[in-house]
Amino acid sequence: MRATQNQRLLRAVTGQRKTKSSKTKYWIGLDLGGTSIKAVGVTVDGELLRQRSLPFEDHDMEWARKIRTLVRGWRRALGEPAGIGLSAPGLAASNARSIAVMPGRLLGLERLDWTDYLSSPTPIPVLNDAHAALLGEVWRGAARGLRNVMLFTLGTGVGGAAMVDGHLLRGAIGRAGHLGHVTVDWNGPRDDFNTAGSLEHFMGNKFIRARTRGRFATTHALVEAAGRGDATARRIWDRSVRALGCSIGSLINVLDPDAVIIGGGIARAGELLFEPLERYVRHYEWQAGGHQARIIRAELGDLAGAYGSAAKALGFDAARE
Amino acid sequence: MRATQNQRLLRAVTGQRKTKSSKTKYWIGLDLGGTSIKAVGVTVDGELLRQRSLPFEDHDMEWARKIRTLVRGWRRALGEPAGIGLSAPGLAASNARSIAVMPGRLLGLERLDWTDYLSSPTPIPVLNDAHAALLGEVWRGAARGLRNVMLFTLGTGVGGAAMVDGHLLRGAIGRAGHLGHVTVDWNGPRDDFNTAGSLEHFMGNKFIRARTRGRFATTHALVEAAGRGDATARRIWDRSVRALGCSIGSLINVLDPDAVIIGGGIARAGELLFEPLERYVRHYEWQAGGHQARIIRAELGDLAGAYGSAAKALGFDAARE
Repeated sequence: MRATQNQRLLRAVTGQRKTKSSKTKYWIGLDLGGTSIKAVGVTVDGELLRQRSLPFEDHDMEWARKIRTLVRGWRRALGEPAGIGLSAPGLAASNARSIAVMPGRLLGLERLDWTDYLSSPTPIPVLNDAHAALLGEVWRGAARGLRNVMLFTLGTGVGGAAMVDGHLLRGAIGRAGHLGHVTVDWNGPRDDFNTAGSLEHFMGNKFIRARTRGRFATTHALVEAAGRGDATARRIWDRSVRALGCSIGSLINVLDPDAVIIGGGIARAGELLFEPLERYVRHYEWQAGGHQARIIRAELGDLAGAYGSAAKALGFDAARE
Repeated sequence: MRATQNQRLLRAVTGQRKTKSSKTKYWIGLDLGGTSIKAVGVTVDGELLRQRSLPFEDHDMEWARKIRTLVRGWRRALGEPAGIGLSAPGLAASNARSIAVMPGRLLGLERLDWTDYLSSPTPIPVLNDAHAALLGEVWRGAARGLRNVMLFTLGTGVGGAAMVDGHLLRGAIGRAGHLGHVTVDWNGPRDDFNTAGSLEHFMGNKFIRARTRGRFATTHALVEAAGRGDATARRIWDRSVRALGCSIGSLINVLDPDAVIIGGGIARAGELLFEPLERYVRHYEWQAGGHQARIIRAELGDLAGAYGSAAKALGFDAARE
């Protein structure tokens, strides 16, 4: 409010007219990742006015200062935003003003109140990053108009989020939708979350060396070898895709989606992923009344979280659409 | 409306005063099971005015006629109810006026419009039976005041339902919450729902002979033998409980509940179930920020569905409590 009043005062004193940018109502969506910050400035319809990607080093809260500087710059250039939203790794507090739980990384993030930190005149909703990515895809991406959607992001780990009946699932402590941590093989080792033989264990890039007995250093290399016809690579990759298909089959019974969005770096495998995945999902899916969940590709790439944060700030609610 | 008007007219003509029962505003909750109908008449606070359990044979829609007769009797005795709700096996239609999908049993149930069939002046919401049972437990049972809850009913099969952030999960075709159909062992056989090595496979009474190589005919007999110290029975039962604990561990990451309700006939095993289950859940649970989901026993027994149907009819919404 104050900024707007000051601007009006300034214009009254200097006789300046409103510039075009200061007339366009816009929202800022911020997504704090592991190594970079993504930011979008969007209109209520999702039109992209600005975007930035800022790498950072994870020490001394450099990420926080970079976000503050970025927001200050956009305020100067575009005027006070109608709202700001932010997403970050970890579990969001129930009042949505901060990340409550994020051990080990981004020291200083836990309990940082972003509304205060960015001196925002309106509360800044804070979302888990995967929750934000799904909200972004529903608002302006692959799942526009849908109300029942699961998202898997296949990367270092396997992230996820779920929307049911238009409600983005949050849960008791903000952990709902951790879809990479469901058991595929109960005799497998427990992962970081104590889940036995989890999907992440079979698909996450962080376990690629263990899974391939050191033969492949990255999932990218594995998929490339499978694409070239390497028999061992094909077998290992097929196992990963089957684990994903099997997990999707299970979770369809729990979350009953219209569509399953697949994103993350490993989704760039394209048909080498989607062709066998489609087969496995149909194999493990309960097609009640002939219903089949669609398997679709994420559309917003690494901007999904920033779009979702903006969507949250502007009050987008799929349940009311 | 018409019934109430007729009653008023009748009273005006005969000079009759309202009886106590016709003054008490009440709702009817109906639960159509596999072999019996449960009915409750309750006040807005859940006070039980009447209850009935009616067995039926599954032919020629005997269940439908029995429900109609019961409702007619209660209307005569207690006056027109403020609302009626009904639950039944199968997937509820998206307009909640009927069960849309229920193959194989209760012929005539699919697409039967209960509002029309019972000549109700107000729409009769129709719910899946497990969804109704969870709603009942949240309204008046073990999960009063909670907004994040999973329910498992351990019986012939393994049924389930889930509430997240106060919303009872329905999903695209009404199948959300089929928690018995998640994979525990992906190398296990696919169940009726195509789920590989599902929880139902390890815990459902329908698979007890296969699971015990014919040694036990019922889970009851298995648990009894385990209680007596029979080594084989203990081993088999421990495996079942571990499968349940492992599944709960997975689903905590997906649905993030405050509490997990365990009901159904097999829950009568008492400490022989709950003591090892507690251990396995703690073993497989991601206790983010020290959070532990409580494992609790269902309280409403076989009336849970009827209570939940009444709760739905009277507009109970845990998200707004």
